[in-house]
Amino acid sequence: MFESAELGHKVAKEVWDREVPALREALLDAQYDLTEAKFPVIILIAGVDGSGKSETVNTLNEWMDPRHIQTFGLDEPSDEERERPHMWRYWRMLPPKGRMGIFDGSWYTWPILERAYGRIKTSDLDQDMARVARFEQMLIHEGALVLKFWMHLSKDVQKKRLKGLEKDPKTAWRVTPRDWKHFEMYDTFRQVAERALRATSTGDAPWIVVEGTDPRYQKLTVGKILLERMRARLDQPAPVAPIAPANPPRTSIDGMNILRALDLTKRMDKKEYEDALLTFQGRLNLLARHRNLRKHSIVLVFEGVDAAGKGGSIRRITQSLDARRYHIHPTAAPTEDERAQPYLWRFWRNLPRKGKVAIFDRSWYGRVLVERVEGYCSEADWQRAYSEINDFEDQIVRSRSILLKFWLSISPEEQLRRFEERQVTPFKRFKITEEDWRNREKWPAYEAAICDMLDRTSTEIAPWTLVESESKYFGRIKILRTLVQRLEDEL
Amino acid sequence: MFESAELGHKVAKEVWDREVPALREALLDAQYDLTEAKFPVIILIAGVDGSGKSETVNTLNEWMDPRHIQTFGLDEPSDEERERPHMWRYWRMLPPKGRMGIFDGSWYTWPILERAYGRIKTSDLDQDMARVARFEQMLIHEGALVLKFWMHLSKDVQKKRLKGLEKDPKTAWRVTPRDWKHFEMYDTFRQVAERALRATSTGDAPWIVVEGTDPRYQKLTVGKILLERMRARLDQPAPVAPIAPANPPRTSIDGMNILRALDLTKRMDKKEYEDALLTFQGRLNLLARHRNLRKHSIVLVFEGVDAAGKGGSIRRITQSLDARRYHIHPTAAPTEDERAQPYLWRFWRNLPRKGKVAIFDRSWYGRVLVERVEGYCSEADWQRAYSEINDFEDQIVRSRSILLKFWLSISPEEQLRRFEERQVTPFKRFKITEEDWRNREKWPAYEAAICDMLDRTSTEIAPWTLVESESKYFGRIKILRTLVQRLEDEL
Repeated sequence: MFESAELGHKVAKEVWDREVPALREALLDAQYDLTEAKFPVIILIAGVDGSGKSETVNTLNEWMDPRHIQTFGLDEPSDEERERPHMWRYWRMLPPKGRMGIFDGSWYTWPILERAYGRIKTSDLDQDMARVARFEQMLIHEGALVLKFWMHLSKDVQKKRLKGLEKDPKTAWRVTPRDWKHFEMYDTFRQVAERALRATSTGDAPWIVVEGTDPRYQKLTVGKILLERMRARLDQPAPVAPIAPANPPRTSIDGMNILRALDLTKRMDKKEYEDALLTFQGRLNLLARHRNLRKHSIVLVFEGVDAAGKGGSIRRITQSLDARRYHIHPTAAPTEDERAQPYLWRFWRNLPRKGKVAIFDRSWYGRVLVERVEGYCSEADWQRAYSEINDFEDQIVRSRSILLKFWLSISPEEQLRRFEERQVTPFKRFKITEEDWRNREKWPAYEAAICDMLDRTSTEIAPWTLVESESKYFGRIKILRTLVQRLEDEL
Repeated sequence: MFESAELGHKVAKEVWDREVPALREALLDAQYDLTEAKFPVIILIAGVDGSGKSETVNTLNEWMDPRHIQTFGLDEPSDEERERPHMWRYWRMLPPKGRMGIFDGSWYTWPILERAYGRIKTSDLDQDMARVARFEQMLIHEGALVLKFWMHLSKDVQKKRLKGLEKDPKTAWRVTPRDWKHFEMYDTFRQVAERALRATSTGDAPWIVVEGTDPRYQKLTVGKILLERMRARLDQPAPVAPIAPANPPRTSIDGMNILRALDLTKRMDKKEYEDALLTFQGRLNLLARHRNLRKHSIVLVFEGVDAAGKGGSIRRITQSLDARRYHIHPTAAPTEDERAQPYLWRFWRNLPRKGKVAIFDRSWYGRVLVERVEGYCSEADWQRAYSEINDFEDQIVRSRSILLKFWLSISPEEQLRRFEERQVTPFKRFKITEEDWRNREKWPAYEAAICDMLDRTSTEIAPWTLVESESKYFGRIKILRTLVQRLEDEL
């Protein structure tokens, strides 16, 4: 993998002097076109120590307009970052459409280091890299141009380089004891890096290994590849968005599905409800101040058709919580900043810290429900969303978040009854809009989408709780009981 | 101040039962109208311990649609918050236009606590409160409806309340040893709170003291006042934005001003420049890895007319910095999310953590430059901006940030020369737009705005460095030298 980056590639000064002005001009043009384009450029600069990564990043900033480049380096994660899934910090840094983000250090840095130091196993590295590959695939599907450069130095050259840097007072500071330690681990790093690169070199985001021996060669190579890839992408005719027609509801032969199989006749009378409410709210109260909660965060997802009782159920929970602990995130149409990012970005953004509760009133499942049914995204988009969502939830759970997902189910008849009730109850009237009536007409399409969603995203680590909400009392108590029991198990 | 909140105000259950449904309906209507309106509602719930603050917050969430309410409580600040000016965390929480933010704990919490504990002096409290009053004034000018509720309990009632909470197993958890400690400090707290409230009860954002003895009285009072204030604001005819006409340039009698007084003939030859560049970049290199830098953050502001050399000067600095340490923030037109917030919000958002450098290529000064001259905001808006900016910078400096502001000055003739040069140099062509030519025609108006800006925002704690940039070499070196000397002084 690294052999052709150990050949001693060089670029003569005359070539550099001749080629750089034209390259700069072309890069600036491309960058200028990018600001009008609808995709971000994500550049990873990785590689061995002392291989000129920062210098290359600086040069790119110099050649292009730095106002449209965001450069990130990796420090120790902050406490806000440590208390969330590992990838949270990178989601924070993603450049929006029309911008370029350069990562000097990236989602590869820690897995490779951890493996080289023997703190994780090869199988862990493989799992991490599989996740990374899926993450990058998602970025590409969302439109990003992803360029991954691996700066390579042979062992000999790295040694010379480190010594050279050390000798020059202007650069000596850049060589730390850690660099020498890593140099001693050269072979291990090479082996681990090769494994990581192999697992993540995909057709859409291949690794580009660049020899770092000669800075002119290195920078010119990176610049030219960047230009070529940007130009190719910019000059592509804009893809005609293949928006799916409202897809026909698929029902099974016997008309049975997981929603219809629910027993919506389950009811609870007022007295029983009030007793249960008091009991479970009391228990939730106690749980909410359990000391172990500080080690976890809680993510609650509420989905259901209009008028299924999401808001009322959420309020029965928040009544037992300290207002300082929870945050409700209603999911409405995305804002301009959100539209400039992958669709999961706004949910990543709102993941809670340890000790906090995030309640999503509708959620990332909009992608496979309303966006699918209304044709707001292409079929390819919502089809891939299932596994992207599973990955997302996997990361939430792995960060020791407690994740619960509730599907609130009512019959079309009950929905109609509630709609009509809302229209006559003045302080509920605001809850019902023309759109609600329109959505109602698409019940079969929604039903199909819901069944697909439940089938494909009810996983062992993040199962759906189906809630028979035809009786509000029954539904609310089932949700409270499920939450309380889950917390009692976890804490 | 608190006397009328010790009268034992009460609301009978019948009154409550009769009034709440109508109030809820009206609040929901108001809240619904708010989503279409162009202002945020900021509600502070403060007051003595055990006075039902959280319960009131919960009730407001219950009465209204929680999807349009953001509720915040105060934890210990995170490291990302601690490493920035004190108010940063509140800026993060500000609700956008059309939304309601409820603060259970706010910018009053810490100053009052610190003073009550004797950790700061009365004069410090007064200063803090003066700053808070100016901050709230700014929010109001930016359109926010600010409602500040102080929940009061007499000493006797507080004692009974704490004991009552303790007795009930459902609420006992809410009473901590800290609450009892604070109870012993009741008189001190009362005195400090009264001082704080007096200093910040302004015509636009008066404190509303609410007796917390009877929850029905308390909640109904808060709900009714909230409704009344929201309704009054919503029913106001939209103010006709009094946009200033491009204001006539004001020149002093003798035609002399601070810009014209600059000696733009200062030059530097290439050899001298290259030597100086090497020297100062080397020193900057060393400084950038000074261990004391970890205790500071650095904020650099670059302003100047088009083609004054901001980008080139920034690049001469970033060349000596580790790419992982700095971030350039170009200031373009605000995004949708940014437009829904006070104009300083997007700059607050980008303040750096300790050890980091934030470089603003154009900045918050746009308010008093382009926005003033082009009439993008009213005269009242840009007039008040000077002191808002001074406050902002005061907070930056007080958080141990090192702040430098550079004004790059060139003559109109030199600008013309550079524009023409840009048009013939292919890779610079993207830098020049129709707008640049249009702006150029307004030179006198800009000159007046610049002089006002320099006069009013060059403060002892955050002085402007005027840079004679007619000669790019001279300008760049002056900037580097100023930065290096400042860092040498501070570190």
